[in-house]
Amino acid sequence: MKRSYASDLYLALIHYPVTNKNGDIIASAVTNLDLHDISRAARTYAVKRVYVVTPLSDQKELVKKIVSHWVEGAGSTYNSIRGEALVLIKLMDSLEDVVGDIRKKSKAVPRTVVTSAKKDARGLGRTIGYQTFREMLTGGAPHLLMFGTAWGLSEAVIDEADFILDPIMGEADYNHLSVRSAVSIILDRLKGDYK
Amino acid sequence: MKRSYASDLYLALIHYPVTNKNGDIIASAVTNLDLHDISRAARTYAVKRVYVVTPLSDQKELVKKIVSHWVEGAGSTYNSIRGEALVLIKLMDSLEDVVGDIRKKSKAVPRTVVTSAKKDARGLGRTIGYQTFREMLTGGAPHLLMFGTAWGLSEAVIDEADFILDPIMGEADYNHLSVRSAVSIILDRLKGDYK
Repeated sequence: MKRSYASDLYLALIHYPVTNKNGDIIASAVTNLDLHDISRAARTYAVKRVYVVTPLSDQKELVKKIVSHWVEGAGSTYNSIRGEALVLIKLMDSLEDVVGDIRKKSKAVPRTVVTSAKKDARGLGRTIGYQTFREMLTGGAPHLLMFGTAWGLSEAVIDEADFILDPIMGEADYNHLSVRSAVSIILDRLKGDYK
Repeated sequence: MKRSYASDLYLALIHYPVTNKNGDIIASAVTNLDLHDISRAARTYAVKRVYVVTPLSDQKELVKKIVSHWVEGAGSTYNSIRGEALVLIKLMDSLEDVVGDIRKKSKAVPRTVVTSAKKDARGLGRTIGYQTFREMLTGGAPHLLMFGTAWGLSEAVIDEADFILDPIMGEADYNHLSVRSAVSIILDRLKGDYK
């Protein structure tokens, strides 16, 4: 499996709109380790940018504080490799803004791909496997891969996406990875190179 | 790539002996999200047990508190799927105790495999790739896969292991995944099944 560094891949970690345990639409809180783990995986696999999507101003302040601590603050002298990853993070109010930002950077509208822990019957015709997505990435067009926090992306976000990526299936009876694990595994499936 | 559920695979998350930033041998602190993320990934990929290795009594108390909260305490009614993963965790004082426990459970001495973020010249002859390890697992013999916390496993642990697994290489210039990401990616490479 050849890696495609030329690929124009972006990630979005979405805190709104996502669902809670009861299926209600909520804005979730940002988790410190999500920022670290996901940006480190993104940097490892040559992702262009990691969008952290939240409209909440206190959450945006938190993200700014964490990122600046490691990129230019005391953390950058203590451990500079954290900053090399966290610098990939860009805050956005909404998915629309993310798409606009990629459009500006890549001069093309990105194809949007959602991830989900379960197969969705409504996804028929839009569902893609890893090999297919890998091949799509070699084409050079920009792609935005979206991950939901809390209990997952809202139905509206899934409905509007161009593609739905196959879930990571482990044993049939347990399918509850953290978003940090899911991002890492999916990036490796798309861009990993090993024997 | 076929998954081998029959495999007798164990993980150890090692907090002693590991190294710090300066290369000194230390006992590291347990991280709450390591326990959650790693046990969830282990449960997803049918790992038999996750050993958390630390000789420090306050750290052992912390692990017991977290695990019992989700396995039998208030957390188990709030979200029972966490307990289904955390129940895989078993506390151990030392690697010797881990090997003894597997020996008792599997009636055989496990082959030990260490993970490392860098290629080690001293590993020549003991280094294995993912395809090789995958095939070893289908044989049914017990295997113990070890992950270091902090700045990584001590040289002595690496020296004594039967095998050294190839590092996860991303871009040549950045190779700093979290242990949570590394566990997830390695389990998927060994046991994932997708197209």
